[in-house]
Amino acid sequence: MLYQEFNARRDRRKFMQQVATGAVGLVSMAAWNRTLWAADDSRLFVHSKAPMNAEPLLPDLVKSWVTPVESFFIRSHGNTPILGGSSFRLTVEGLVDQPLTLSLAELNQLSQIELSATLTCAGNRRSEHSRIKTVKGVQWREGAIGNAQWRGVRLSDILKRAGLRDAAKHVWFEGLDAVEDGGKTFAFGGSIPLEKALLDRDTAPGAMLATMMNDKPLTADHGFPLRSIVPGYIGARSVKWLSKIVVSDRPSPNHFVADVYKLVDEGSLLEVAENAPIYRMPLNSAICTVAAKSERIEVTGYALPPGVPGVSIRKVEVSADDGQSWTEAKLTSPAAEFCWQLWSADISLKSTTRELIVRATDSRGETQPQMPRWNAKGYLFNGWHRVSLKV
Amino acid sequence: MLYQEFNARRDRRKFMQQVATGAVGLVSMAAWNRTLWAADDSRLFVHSKAPMNAEPLLPDLVKSWVTPVESFFIRSHGNTPILGGSSFRLTVEGLVDQPLTLSLAELNQLSQIELSATLTCAGNRRSEHSRIKTVKGVQWREGAIGNAQWRGVRLSDILKRAGLRDAAKHVWFEGLDAVEDGGKTFAFGGSIPLEKALLDRDTAPGAMLATMMNDKPLTADHGFPLRSIVPGYIGARSVKWLSKIVVSDRPSPNHFVADVYKLVDEGSLLEVAENAPIYRMPLNSAICTVAAKSERIEVTGYALPPGVPGVSIRKVEVSADDGQSWTEAKLTSPAAEFCWQLWSADISLKSTTRELIVRATDSRGETQPQMPRWNAKGYLFNGWHRVSLKV
Repeated sequence: MLYQEFNARRDRRKFMQQVATGAVGLVSMAAWNRTLWAADDSRLFVHSKAPMNAEPLLPDLVKSWVTPVESFFIRSHGNTPILGGSSFRLTVEGLVDQPLTLSLAELNQLSQIELSATLTCAGNRRSEHSRIKTVKGVQWREGAIGNAQWRGVRLSDILKRAGLRDAAKHVWFEGLDAVEDGGKTFAFGGSIPLEKALLDRDTAPGAMLATMMNDKPLTADHGFPLRSIVPGYIGARSVKWLSKIVVSDRPSPNHFVADVYKLVDEGSLLEVAENAPIYRMPLNSAICTVAAKSERIEVTGYALPPGVPGVSIRKVEVSADDGQSWTEAKLTSPAAEFCWQLWSADISLKSTTRELIVRATDSRGETQPQMPRWNAKGYLFNGWHRVSLKV
Repeated sequence: MLYQEFNARRDRRKFMQQVATGAVGLVSMAAWNRTLWAADDSRLFVHSKAPMNAEPLLPDLVKSWVTPVESFFIRSHGNTPILGGSSFRLTVEGLVDQPLTLSLAELNQLSQIELSATLTCAGNRRSEHSRIKTVKGVQWREGAIGNAQWRGVRLSDILKRAGLRDAAKHVWFEGLDAVEDGGKTFAFGGSIPLEKALLDRDTAPGAMLATMMNDKPLTADHGFPLRSIVPGYIGARSVKWLSKIVVSDRPSPNHFVADVYKLVDEGSLLEVAENAPIYRMPLNSAICTVAAKSERIEVTGYALPPGVPGVSIRKVEVSADDGQSWTEAKLTSPAAEFCWQLWSADISLKSTTRELIVRATDSRGETQPQMPRWNAKGYLFNGWHRVSLKV
């Protein structure tokens, strides 16, 4: 259902009548300001085409725990390189005993792993952040998130093959795209602490290099032929079109590590220098569908555990009375480390109900903040998610 | 007045009788668990002698805007070097065109500045933090703070003299003390972004190298013959017995920059690697004295602006009814950037009053949190400060 269609249903009286008569099907409360759509089989709302930034409609997003590629958000910072697999090489250099150059065939001959991991853009829900005070950047709604099945090699296997030197402390990733910023052209880069790269446990590897997404080779939009996947970290550390790994004693000086993806109040050079790159994704949740079900309504959505090892979603709660009382939702999908969970809740609307609210609590007992602190770049917005039922 | 004396007065009924009759003089509500005192003319309560860590009683602390040296907290991480001034040399190296070696006499020949700046330990009020959940480290009360008049040279003048290379981004400080930690012995070190070092304005220099404190040479406890002073930053960046400056493209790898002074939830190696060193001091305040004044009581204390350039204290408020109502205090001292302010308030106690609370609000409109988030190392505790009036 497109914006134009469901928007016509947003009159609440009509909606409530339909609820009462059971006439309402799947309804998303999302309101889009633009109606530019990706071509072909993609179901994505396109924020910008160059670079390509797009996200799914929320009802599409939560149809399944594993997000189909055509409903998976796309976040790019430069062009979308169309690369040939046979000529592709990954190089590994820096603080290693033996620099490596690996073809795709060589990577595929190494021990392969499969992993479910949720990626989310640090700017997911930025449009809500901008309602407090406008921030620049892609005005993502709640759809800059997706959960996929990744296949490839453990990053730690590659690093062990190269041999880590004692001074090694961080691992840099560099893509083959061309980002234009500040009069310069350079490749997008990410960086993770070595401890993360080596944090292999049964539940998840620290990081991996993926060639496959949902049992098919990566699409160009998602980084063909190779990308890093860093479970629990913001999507910006899962670098697409990955062609170079550098082992270093410090975080990457790449613009997107040193300057961009940081939590800052006003964003002066001093404040940027004082702060670390963002690594972990935040505890989050969103309402994605609202549907009639006899005299009650069924609400569904997603909940994301924070990027803290071992921490999962404990509960998801929905309120129809502005947070005075909460109904615990049912978790309807698998639980896996650093993966979202889908949920549904049966809710009775009250005559005073003007909006629905969702919030998640993690296994440490931490609950999403009602309203997070505003920051100059609009990152990690994870306040209680509200959908209006307009009167 | 020592602990033993004022402790005897802490019976609230007796206290209230004394309030009613005007018999109570200056009373501090502080209760100390240990009674080891620094020798001679020092008025400091000593947490440990090796390394020397000591803080004043609160009534002593707020007697004047400029804190006398004998009431100024001492924070050391290793031994207290007793150095000769004539043989002392400061070296400046790293990403500079011309490495320098400067004697005290040469430093004193350079253009001198005078500056008021408040230093506070990142662990100030850790004992309150530990009441939530115990953390290791010196169990500072509210006295790990002091405001002094510093004299010396601008750090930027030294850096310009050496000539900064393009890649320069951070300035490291290294002392002449010997810290023993993890089976190693090494000098204490600090580090600040270059933007901070060069942030010279009329209100304050970015940083300075001080030889004088309150018009006298630094004492051994405070870093004779030379220390860095970094206004607005936690005390750990104002390095004592400073003998080496290194200009670099990254923060110092010194243990106290790379590992120790960081805000972390649990403190794993991964979490430490993910987080930046703490730089800025937090907005803070404390009640330091309570005294009878006819039928009302006079409360005094300090308020500290946060280490954000240009931000000052807007107001200080005291509550005698658990935060239901607040009385605005009078600011009684000068206001200078990155300096505390002293305040006093006349308060009427209610029959239900069990404690007094203070909180400060800064010029951005931000108020101290009622209770800050707990962190594994007990840093930056700045919740509303409460003093019990025991019944």
